[in-house]
Amino acid sequence: MDTAKDKTLSSLGEFGLIERLRQRFPAPEGLTGIGDDCAILPQQSGRDTLVSTDMLIEGTHFLRGDIPPYALGWKSAAVNISDIAAMGGRPTATFLSLALPADLGTAWVDEFFRGYTTLSKRFGAALLGGDTTGSPRGICINVAVLGECPGGTARKRSDAREGDLVCVSGNLGDSALGLRAILEGLERDADIQALIDRHYLPLPRVEEGLRLAATTGVHAMMDLSDGLASDLPHILEASGKGAEIDTAALPLSDTLQRVCTRLDWDPLPFALGGGEDYELLFTVDPDAEKDLDVPHSVIGKIIPCHSERTRRIYWHGTNRAFSGFDHFHRD
Amino acid sequence: MDTAKDKTLSSLGEFGLIERLRQRFPAPEGLTGIGDDCAILPQQSGRDTLVSTDMLIEGTHFLRGDIPPYALGWKSAAVNISDIAAMGGRPTATFLSLALPADLGTAWVDEFFRGYTTLSKRFGAALLGGDTTGSPRGICINVAVLGECPGGTARKRSDAREGDLVCVSGNLGDSALGLRAILEGLERDADIQALIDRHYLPLPRVEEGLRLAATTGVHAMMDLSDGLASDLPHILEASGKGAEIDTAALPLSDTLQRVCTRLDWDPLPFALGGGEDYELLFTVDPDAEKDLDVPHSVIGKIIPCHSERTRRIYWHGTNRAFSGFDHFHRD
Repeated sequence: MDTAKDKTLSSLGEFGLIERLRQRFPAPEGLTGIGDDCAILPQQSGRDTLVSTDMLIEGTHFLRGDIPPYALGWKSAAVNISDIAAMGGRPTATFLSLALPADLGTAWVDEFFRGYTTLSKRFGAALLGGDTTGSPRGICINVAVLGECPGGTARKRSDAREGDLVCVSGNLGDSALGLRAILEGLERDADIQALIDRHYLPLPRVEEGLRLAATTGVHAMMDLSDGLASDLPHILEASGKGAEIDTAALPLSDTLQRVCTRLDWDPLPFALGGGEDYELLFTVDPDAEKDLDVPHSVIGKIIPCHSERTRRIYWHGTNRAFSGFDHFHRD
Repeated sequence: MDTAKDKTLSSLGEFGLIERLRQRFPAPEGLTGIGDDCAILPQQSGRDTLVSTDMLIEGTHFLRGDIPPYALGWKSAAVNISDIAAMGGRPTATFLSLALPADLGTAWVDEFFRGYTTLSKRFGAALLGGDTTGSPRGICINVAVLGECPGGTARKRSDAREGDLVCVSGNLGDSALGLRAILEGLERDADIQALIDRHYLPLPRVEEGLRLAATTGVHAMMDLSDGLASDLPHILEASGKGAEIDTAALPLSDTLQRVCTRLDWDPLPFALGGGEDYELLFTVDPDAEKDLDVPHSVIGKIIPCHSERTRRIYWHGTNRAFSGFDHFHRD
């Protein structure tokens, strides 16, 4: 090993590592690989198989004491099925690997599986295999999910076109505010409990994704897992485009607005940076947008981006001075 | 949770947990799910998609200081591709999830990927996706692998028939003896290094599996990951059969025999209980066996097993008194 060039992973960062791998392991011709929500594998039948995998690590993604095992099982299935929804596919099968400390009880495992299968069955995805093993330290969960769609219809991150409208299904920020409520130990009245449920029990937008992928004019699509401010740049970079976003147009639930007003909290950091919304973020031709049969909000539009060094996102709206996004501005 | 019935996982054991899940989550009709080397998903094209996943945990499956990252990468791909080989399929794509401590260097990651891709490319399996994340504690690796075979040709564990011969490809015990040599710090002469290479750099029997699956008369098949004494019972239980095994017929390499003679070690525990051989274990009609174009050894035959409480395996041969197997004897 060339230790002179050796960097620690903390200095490289997760996205730096993914980019390093993407460059070294380009997908073979005809296949879409690392860098989208799913890999796309064309089948002889003319249909495409979609595959995605996600890992959840105790201490990185969750704390055992903070999340009930039922919710952890639900969420493990949901975040993976959401990747299939993000391509406009239908989930078919999941494969679950679990590394568990020996002192964990079977009741914990049963509750985990009850949550996992309740969510999976709702979306028609069978649990067809996996691996169970001991772990000397924390819980480690990996889910691989398979889905399918008609050949060539999967929506990628790289298809945003100049003039497209930028849209999101559903509301933003509820999940992040729910997490904040858990961490701050807020009293669980009806509003707070609804937000916590959004955080614990997200519903992937499978039917919405299928309808969007059946619509000509819907171009780029992905799911919102890290928050709009982190996820939109993935579409823009993959498509070589920029965007203007009107923060005043971001869809906020009545519940979120009530709670934020009551606590005097700014809702925007939750809506933009909180993550785990699992709503769909997509771009659509303006002529097609008015006929969409999926509830959505238009939050901006796609603009040209003439060089890698140009700013990708122009934030407008009442809160344009919001300071959380300077690290995305490159000019 | 009903804590009165709660058991810790250490009391249930890995196989107890898998059995618990298999009973609760039977595969939908037409699909083969939990309990074989791979799940089998029939495609509209008439071909079958095979899927398997395996998790490797630092401290459970490997110690960071004991295995070079190149070997760990190689092995992570090999053990999964071996599951495709075990069904008689051809691997097509892999998906790699990695949870890594922040203090790990990029040189470690690069070496890991060099090993991973060297093995994968050799067997035509593209790395098409995955997940990378931080880990607060040890390294956690999960690989999901996809493969394919002509519809209905995948060889399952449940197809052993009375009168079948029990066969293994290649030799047994080299990998386990290699591991012992590492742990005991034996001087790495040519013999020892060859055994260590067998442990670090196993070669899945993909071509052999394809040829066996193309042969009428080859019935049950699996790969040897935990050792013959642990793995053969999986075929016997899935098939509702027993077996007579001649321990004097177990195939041992010249290298293993030389090293065991020199050190005055009994070779049988390595050949029977050591694991990580990644050879194919299969049963075949005696009439078909003589025409097989895959190097193999006949080590026994399949016999009836009239009840769950009957002994599954009768060990014969010069070492029949070998004591490692009492926990498989049920009479």
